[in-house]
Amino acid sequence: MSQNIELTVSGRIRKSPYYNATIRYGAKTFTVYNHMLMPTSYEDPEKDYWNLVNNVTVWDVAGERQVEISGPESYRFVEYITPRDLSKLQIGQGKYALITDENGGIINDPIILRISKDKFWLSIADSDVLLWTKGLAEGLGWNVKIREPDVSPLAIQGPNNLPLMIDLLGEWVSELKYFFFKEFELDGIPLIVQRSGWSKQGGFELYLMDGTRGEELWERVMEVGMKYDIKPATPNNIERIESGLFSWGNDMNIENNPLELPLNNFIQIDKGADYICREALQRISSQGVKNKIVGLVIDGEQLPGACENNWNIFSSDKLSGKVTSTAYSPRLKQNIAFATVDSHLGGLGTKLDVETPWGRRSAKVSKIPFN
Amino acid sequence: MSQNIELTVSGRIRKSPYYNATIRYGAKTFTVYNHMLMPTSYEDPEKDYWNLVNNVTVWDVAGERQVEISGPESYRFVEYITPRDLSKLQIGQGKYALITDENGGIINDPIILRISKDKFWLSIADSDVLLWTKGLAEGLGWNVKIREPDVSPLAIQGPNNLPLMIDLLGEWVSELKYFFFKEFELDGIPLIVQRSGWSKQGGFELYLMDGTRGEELWERVMEVGMKYDIKPATPNNIERIESGLFSWGNDMNIENNPLELPLNNFIQIDKGADYICREALQRISSQGVKNKIVGLVIDGEQLPGACENNWNIFSSDKLSGKVTSTAYSPRLKQNIAFATVDSHLGGLGTKLDVETPWGRRSAKVSKIPFN
Repeated sequence: MSQNIELTVSGRIRKSPYYNATIRYGAKTFTVYNHMLMPTSYEDPEKDYWNLVNNVTVWDVAGERQVEISGPESYRFVEYITPRDLSKLQIGQGKYALITDENGGIINDPIILRISKDKFWLSIADSDVLLWTKGLAEGLGWNVKIREPDVSPLAIQGPNNLPLMIDLLGEWVSELKYFFFKEFELDGIPLIVQRSGWSKQGGFELYLMDGTRGEELWERVMEVGMKYDIKPATPNNIERIESGLFSWGNDMNIENNPLELPLNNFIQIDKGADYICREALQRISSQGVKNKIVGLVIDGEQLPGACENNWNIFSSDKLSGKVTSTAYSPRLKQNIAFATVDSHLGGLGTKLDVETPWGRRSAKVSKIPFN
Repeated sequence: MSQNIELTVSGRIRKSPYYNATIRYGAKTFTVYNHMLMPTSYEDPEKDYWNLVNNVTVWDVAGERQVEISGPESYRFVEYITPRDLSKLQIGQGKYALITDENGGIINDPIILRISKDKFWLSIADSDVLLWTKGLAEGLGWNVKIREPDVSPLAIQGPNNLPLMIDLLGEWVSELKYFFFKEFELDGIPLIVQRSGWSKQGGFELYLMDGTRGEELWERVMEVGMKYDIKPATPNNIERIESGLFSWGNDMNIENNPLELPLNNFIQIDKGADYICREALQRISSQGVKNKIVGLVIDGEQLPGACENNWNIFSSDKLSGKVTSTAYSPRLKQNIAFATVDSHLGGLGTKLDVETPWGRRSAKVSKIPFN
């Protein structure tokens, strides 16, 4: 388990603007994310984890591609694709949103950024949202333009992010509120700077708007970061599970709907604007969901590897769900996980059995975040 | 160059029903294709090549996922998404087709199979056609149902494919014409058997319709194939370039349109049915295309590696295109390639310069297929 695979590189799998830098700085393993190589470890996932939770790190997350939706009907369109109420989304603000098909099936879970009155970016997880939105807009005949702009996020994450960012960009960054952003040029390198990132350790994302300047930006961050002992790292599976961050494609996909997730604050079924899955969510809401996506603590010593495929979950020997992501938390000294279970088993403290590749273990539904 | 990368395995990157078998039989390297691991080599690409062109091989191509389009308006819909005329597509027949957006941008190049009067499969290359078609159909409000069924192709390719396939499935397979298919059960394993495959060495694709039976099917093929010295192999970059088979994502993508490709037989601009890019193709056709996708022979000895990113092409020192795929052909003893060039440079025999990572080489536009 957890054995790495040799990947053949080809043009179809894109290289990020930071790729050469990440190789130079010792990136050891990668994933493919939105048809692009994205690093997944440097030293090893646990050392990368400690660098992230104790200090500050820089991540190549260019694989989080942007889908730009602009034009006179762009606001109407972004409201239409999500059950989240975006009516208060300000220019210069981002919001996390689930986007769904007409049945409520989750297609992706981007951050939606309002760049200007009539221009939005979806900062996406690993599915071709460009194709979904283009198809839908074309079919509807709405007046929007949709494209993937030349934008490649670099994340600065970890508790010591702020002094570094002030040194790099100026005092003004400390005034940015969570998920808000501003355009900024760093010695001519065009950026959008957002207080965000796929960890709960605090930090920023620099949306580089010129792919030819990736290495320059990376080196600037490293230069300023030296004083703070910055380390290269990546989205970290341990930290993101501890923090309750779901991964589209792992913990949810088009087979799931928003009501199965513990994300009520991000779903406004009765929002004012028209949206694609209103009827579906109203129906599911009145009938009750079949599944719940929950946190799980798996008993016993550290599991020898993480969940690569789904592991079956049993309740009184009846197949009742599947584990979708696991990690051993070095801080909690527990095996923590996300799982999809039959909805009546979703209550906190419910006892379940998990069939791991190393035998059956007892487990308990836990609060999210875990820490 | 051509160095492999360590890939982190996670649930987001699916395993094919043949995955365990491919590992057992020595698959060495993989790619990610439609969010699924797909083997890219066993012995090494050149040995795999000779096994393919001299004898017979079996390939895990489950990553060629199917998008199923069914319902009363399914025929209307599949006509709508492609400039290929499908009016003569019979039940039990497949056709290669480019599918495009409203501007003619190529979204994918599937084989379209007509399963029944009102049911089609698109056997796709590496982009989320499921999302494109679902979005478009939903926006149009047409009466079709679109899903990814549990179907995983296994390919038998190579000049000695037929006796093996007769032993495996019966004499009837020899009567299947190119791209035609039939449903068949092999000891209860549900299959669609098509005379097709991503090589020009001849063969079949077995569309397994029950993912739990992948290993069983693989072992049945190997058992019958022993007599024919069958080898496990994969879609082969050398053979597919020799044979003139383009790879979506490498040689073309949404930035290209069908008229840039030498595929006139697959495009009927004036077809009877309504289709999404008619106006765009008529406009491009009358204005003339800007680029041409061509074959190229690159002079000199064998290049030390294949093209991973694009290589620049120059004509009289002016940037005039890019190389998108390369291979050294052991049969032709030449460096062969696909490239996108300014359209006035697309004529056979046109001399160009290619900037390889090992220096500049002269090159010449060549016929496709090369052999």
